[in-house]
Amino acid sequence: MSKTFDIAVIGATGLIGETLLMVLDEREFPVGNLYPLSAGEAGSQVAAFGERNLRVRAVETFDFATVALVFLLEPLAAAQLARIEAAGCALVDLTGSLSAQQAPCVVAGVNSQAAAAGRWLRSPLPAVVALASVLGTLRQVLGLQRVTVTACLAVSSRGRDGIEELARQTAQLLNARPVEPQLFDRQVAFNLLARASAEMPDGHARDERRLAGELGEVLGAPQLPVAVTCVQAPVFFGDSLAVSLLCDEPVDLPVVRHCLEDAAELELVEQGDYPTAVGDALGQDLVYVGRVRAGLQDPRELNLWIASDNVRKGSALNAVQLAELLLKHTL
Amino acid sequence: MSKTFDIAVIGATGLIGETLLMVLDEREFPVGNLYPLSAGEAGSQVAAFGERNLRVRAVETFDFATVALVFLLEPLAAAQLARIEAAGCALVDLTGSLSAQQAPCVVAGVNSQAAAAGRWLRSPLPAVVALASVLGTLRQVLGLQRVTVTACLAVSSRGRDGIEELARQTAQLLNARPVEPQLFDRQVAFNLLARASAEMPDGHARDERRLAGELGEVLGAPQLPVAVTCVQAPVFFGDSLAVSLLCDEPVDLPVVRHCLEDAAELELVEQGDYPTAVGDALGQDLVYVGRVRAGLQDPRELNLWIASDNVRKGSALNAVQLAELLLKHTL
Repeated sequence: MSKTFDIAVIGATGLIGETLLMVLDEREFPVGNLYPLSAGEAGSQVAAFGERNLRVRAVETFDFATVALVFLLEPLAAAQLARIEAAGCALVDLTGSLSAQQAPCVVAGVNSQAAAAGRWLRSPLPAVVALASVLGTLRQVLGLQRVTVTACLAVSSRGRDGIEELARQTAQLLNARPVEPQLFDRQVAFNLLARASAEMPDGHARDERRLAGELGEVLGAPQLPVAVTCVQAPVFFGDSLAVSLLCDEPVDLPVVRHCLEDAAELELVEQGDYPTAVGDALGQDLVYVGRVRAGLQDPRELNLWIASDNVRKGSALNAVQLAELLLKHTL
Repeated sequence: MSKTFDIAVIGATGLIGETLLMVLDEREFPVGNLYPLSAGEAGSQVAAFGERNLRVRAVETFDFATVALVFLLEPLAAAQLARIEAAGCALVDLTGSLSAQQAPCVVAGVNSQAAAAGRWLRSPLPAVVALASVLGTLRQVLGLQRVTVTACLAVSSRGRDGIEELARQTAQLLNARPVEPQLFDRQVAFNLLARASAEMPDGHARDERRLAGELGEVLGAPQLPVAVTCVQAPVFFGDSLAVSLLCDEPVDLPVVRHCLEDAAELELVEQGDYPTAVGDALGQDLVYVGRVRAGLQDPRELNLWIASDNVRKGSALNAVQLAELLLKHTL
């Protein structure tokens, strides 16, 4: 019998946690005991893993010495993180709460080599998984001078509460009732919100700064100018990215298309067609790319559209792939 | 009694036509007789103008010698256009079917002086009215090297049919029934479509090429690189634009904000807040601007967000303002 690893999943019952457990099972990750944990009240929650129903426990009283690997889907207080570190666990963070010093940011297939550097890894924003997959591929055939991206994020980036609120607001509007925003700061149904997270004093939103920082880290190009607007869209699942790249040289479109076609983790839709979050990306392990075109005035410009499942591909799958890298290098 | 002008409105009963008649009335344009026309079957349609209900007539049998000014909201066959020209009418085109040679493209307050050049004028895409209003203002304090815009267009850019289809698709989905796309090529409810018009062989969509061309014409900068993606959003009214500008020099944000604040046709929302199509722009004559911020890595980058009512501000109001310019220069 081959070796198995005991695992703790902190935040196992959320949208991403549920999908993470499914992907661990699907990919036959060598899981021994699996402990679903909650940073808050565990109550009587249960998490499904394969055919097992597992009771959720509280982080505070959990003995991390009993597991080899932790998936962090809820931010923890520093004292709890210190306990995980002291127990010598490997860790995959999806919360964005760890620094680059604590754990390198890794997108599987783009900078997998960075996973050899430590026992703790950060999985970036779902939009970064999609964007880095495409840009990491394109860098084989072109040099990037500048990246501009409008990232239209699904409400599921705010978890189940986001989904419930879009559904509730939509039903209120269709029934000509007043909209009552709760999670979002205003009407998101039949609207677009100009930012998807809190704004900082310099005018950038938290997730915009995070996106640019993580993209630069994953591509190993921290100086690459990245202009980013994260828009909250009235879409349940799937991020859509409108991307414009300025390249070193005039873009050779057939070479670009050939390069995108060859990438195992990408699906390039044929010319004249385009992918959407709902129609293509939903539930898929691939990042969808379309609308590939040069600039109207500047031949060094390359424009494209990316659709990707934020919960599965952008979060759960990359996290499990990072765990597979830890398995290879560290565990 | 002051002079009045007899006017024909071709496409008077559509969403834009209805609003155009309202704006003509509100702004007390000196209308004598008003003739609502239809390029197709006029049937028994009636258009409301002020307190009058006017029967819609067919273009084919209308004598254009009886009017001084024509608003063109539906594309016409060349023979009908020739009749309007032969009758010596002034014309404001909103269809995008005329060339720059036939009529200059004008945004009131941006390149109003171009309206003196002829009797026929083109009103551009609503997104161009919004974008040119902002960029025309900003050019007072900065030099533009490059414009990148993701224009998320409301379904009302496709008229009443667009509105009905988004409502129908949304209701179908909320009732767990299959979606039946008709006007749009796929599910637009709870989704984002990567283009809002037909794609040309070079991969650009028709409205993307039109947007870039009209913007360059209005700004008098046809060589300015404009990267544009027009996205069809599940929004009933109001265009939202995520804009990134590359400028000649590092951006002085206080100067930029002051310049935007001073512009009569713009409303700059305060820092920390942001405008939306539904919450701010709807029914307004102003273009709303927010999320003004410099680049994260490049101080020559300026990012902002624009929301504007595509039907009123972007179409009907600009068309009436062009008619006012014709009144001053030509009629």
